[in-house]
Amino acid sequence: MSRLRVNAFSVSADGFGAGPDQGRDHPLGRGGEQLHNWFIPTRTFQRNVQGRAGGTTGVDDDFAARSFENLGAWIMGRNMFGPVRGPWPDDEWKGWWGANPPYHVPVFVLTHHERAPLEMEGGTTFHFLDTTPAEALETAREAADGQDVRIGGGPTVVRDFLAAGLVDHMHVVQVPIVLGRGVRIWDGLEALEDAYHVEAVSSPSGVTHLTFTRKVAS
Amino acid sequence: MSRLRVNAFSVSADGFGAGPDQGRDHPLGRGGEQLHNWFIPTRTFQRNVQGRAGGTTGVDDDFAARSFENLGAWIMGRNMFGPVRGPWPDDEWKGWWGANPPYHVPVFVLTHHERAPLEMEGGTTFHFLDTTPAEALETAREAADGQDVRIGGGPTVVRDFLAAGLVDHMHVVQVPIVLGRGVRIWDGLEALEDAYHVEAVSSPSGVTHLTFTRKVAS
Repeated sequence: MSRLRVNAFSVSADGFGAGPDQGRDHPLGRGGEQLHNWFIPTRTFQRNVQGRAGGTTGVDDDFAARSFENLGAWIMGRNMFGPVRGPWPDDEWKGWWGANPPYHVPVFVLTHHERAPLEMEGGTTFHFLDTTPAEALETAREAADGQDVRIGGGPTVVRDFLAAGLVDHMHVVQVPIVLGRGVRIWDGLEALEDAYHVEAVSSPSGVTHLTFTRKVAS
Repeated sequence: MSRLRVNAFSVSADGFGAGPDQGRDHPLGRGGEQLHNWFIPTRTFQRNVQGRAGGTTGVDDDFAARSFENLGAWIMGRNMFGPVRGPWPDDEWKGWWGANPPYHVPVFVLTHHERAPLEMEGGTTFHFLDTTPAEALETAREAADGQDVRIGGGPTVVRDFLAAGLVDHMHVVQVPIVLGRGVRIWDGLEALEDAYHVEAVSSPSGVTHLTFTRKVAS
């Protein structure tokens, strides 16, 4: 069965999934890059995102590796795709990830501003959708052809899909830092845990991997 | 050396240390009692707080047991002591804990309203202080006679002592529930982690024990 998953989504102790002032110089907001300190050193990130050998193994890498398994499509918000706001001025911005992005499947970018699909190297095609979470999921699931659909982020998109009751499995990484400002992930999700089995696995890096698995299959 | 400690302080995923609407019927605020689901079943809570035999052993009980070790005095906020607000109408309210409270040492209650000390059974005496965190600590440390001083709570008191840079060791229990409303603990503590070594230990109960140990001794 094709599941809708959130994976490797990092959140600060005070519940922020990104820092404030996201933009070209701060893709994850000011201070937000600290949320990924557990992820960058892993063998999986080094190989899948940086195209390098080496990197750490262990609990963090195990979760990182699983986050890339069995994915047929991604969904992300426009602020995760790039720093451009409002109507697209041209086709210059093609994402943060260079000519060969680390997705290798269709990626559906939620935006209120139309844009033609963008075919990249390595199998990634960015499609731009102005639609509801439920409809975006339907489109992505069709493209995923039986594999899972992953929500990349940012926090607002994760929250919207959770609020709509669409997420089957979520892996959140609790990072013991206090950001103070930014984009909150938990707002409006009171008692979310009632719908999920929750497990916690801590890592020597200091982070905790929380997995939420939906109690009743969708 | 006498340390100032916070122990077994439970916080929701969205950063609340108590639910909303604290009062006689909801000592921890609405929904706040869920924050203690890891603690109540432990052998330590059953013995030290309920005066009963039995209870669970394991990671949660290990942390619970350590939370009671080497304590010479406690500090707590007035809202942890009881539901009475404003000037004390009389001496009727003597805390939530009955004639023999589970402290057995001097307890300093921070309040803007004067009240004579209250001697209970079993070695607990409640003293009422209208003063700053630093001065309250000085008073409590003298009473502790070389043992540690523990801040019981609530969230506002913990936050005030953290903001004043007075906390040497903090054990926070991250509970994977979303409360949505209540009293936040992390507000105003941006980059708190810079001053501490942080360790995470998850438990089969689903909670994670985070310990913050100050990098430089005070």
